[in-house]
Amino acid sequence: MVTGKLSLISIGLFDESDLTLKGLEEAKKADRVFIELYTSKWHGNLKNLEKLVGKKVEILSRKDLEEESYKLLEQAKTRNIAIFVQGSALVQTTHLALLQEARKLNIKTRVVHNASIISAISETGLHPQKFGPYVTIPFPEKTKGKLPESVYEVIKMNKARGLHTLCLLDVEDSKCMTAKEGISILLELEDRRKEEVFTRATEVVVFAKAGSENPLIFYSRVEDILKMDLKEIPAVLIIPGILHFTEKEYLSLFKSEYNRKI
Amino acid sequence: MVTGKLSLISIGLFDESDLTLKGLEEAKKADRVFIELYTSKWHGNLKNLEKLVGKKVEILSRKDLEEESYKLLEQAKTRNIAIFVQGSALVQTTHLALLQEARKLNIKTRVVHNASIISAISETGLHPQKFGPYVTIPFPEKTKGKLPESVYEVIKMNKARGLHTLCLLDVEDSKCMTAKEGISILLELEDRRKEEVFTRATEVVVFAKAGSENPLIFYSRVEDILKMDLKEIPAVLIIPGILHFTEKEYLSLFKSEYNRKI
Repeated sequence: MVTGKLSLISIGLFDESDLTLKGLEEAKKADRVFIELYTSKWHGNLKNLEKLVGKKVEILSRKDLEEESYKLLEQAKTRNIAIFVQGSALVQTTHLALLQEARKLNIKTRVVHNASIISAISETGLHPQKFGPYVTIPFPEKTKGKLPESVYEVIKMNKARGLHTLCLLDVEDSKCMTAKEGISILLELEDRRKEEVFTRATEVVVFAKAGSENPLIFYSRVEDILKMDLKEIPAVLIIPGILHFTEKEYLSLFKSEYNRKI
Repeated sequence: MVTGKLSLISIGLFDESDLTLKGLEEAKKADRVFIELYTSKWHGNLKNLEKLVGKKVEILSRKDLEEESYKLLEQAKTRNIAIFVQGSALVQTTHLALLQEARKLNIKTRVVHNASIISAISETGLHPQKFGPYVTIPFPEKTKGKLPESVYEVIKMNKARGLHTLCLLDVEDSKCMTAKEGISILLELEDRRKEEVFTRATEVVVFAKAGSENPLIFYSRVEDILKMDLKEIPAVLIIPGILHFTEKEYLSLFKSEYNRKI
């Protein structure tokens, strides 16, 4: 008899104060509470989160969630298990796979949604309905030095339709790719393909520390960004397509905006 | 001397418990707190929200936020003004315009993000990076009976690239378009265009009451959905593009899922 439950609780973009009341309530009701911290850089404090929930919050490794997820599912058959996940749950396919397995086992499931960078990008003034599919720029180590051609393809196709492209930057064991590292990879791709999709003259938007009190939004040409000291994480890159005049006007606010507190 | 502040606080998808701790804190610090309820259907309770914030929450009309936004901005020059907005702030261009005006007046601004349907759709098992631009299906009254050809164009172009299309359904003064009404408009478009973009045989996903304890996800052919009593709101339609086998497998969970509690 399956009496347990698996809840995936999104913790939002930045720190523990991004948690929703619903998410907090769900965690309080759980018998065991876990958190995964390896898929993004979380700026929160685990001790504070534990205080809010009123119980221990155990850290899950990639291995716990991927290779050994059966252990979590085994527990969820009879107990109420909650897992805090970064950003919006299920945007990562790992979490989706876990949920699917739970459903197959007739375990009750619950998803608590939260902010995601996919919608938070509207803070840049770019209209969300004008974004094409997004991409993730992987660390070169992951692709064994091979350039991520598919990323270039998506940007190129979005551009052809006048659409914006959100480029997520890879995270590996809490190490986040910086905006400048992402740009370098795109420039390498351009050097190879030479289709004028992403050059030093391309204007891009860097959006870092989304959800924090001091988000950074910076709009400039690639060559200018390369000259700057830009280490803020987590960050994303946006390559605008055809700009509506209201988008242009809004983005102009961020042309000289670096280091200005919003 | 501008000493005030304007905060746009997203209240999330469903009810007051979707509010984040950060959003609640921001509202508590405000001198005056407002809420707009006309851009979507909110299932929350205003009295409960007021209890949480500890002060009166005044309802803003479309007129207050659009034609007479200067009144709000005038106040925000010297006072700390917070506005609760539905879903994720700034996805609506009205909110973006307000923020832009505030920045021009040197009013300090703050955005508190929250869940948006744009990322919550990952609960259907469809991979978020495979969505093309989304569309909004307008009420026929709004378009003076003219069919929204641009909606058809976007779905068609997404389909050509194998991408999924999220169709948001119009809201007018808290009246939400149902999934079936949205489908009827798309079928009318098909009747006119006859390009086999959206027919009675097309398989679609209906996702309603996102963020609630009992979200509804239903995957079926258009002709089957038309036979059902499907009034849940707020709802969205998703027209899948080319499905990855993991997406196919996940969606199959929702084939006979109507009325089953998740």
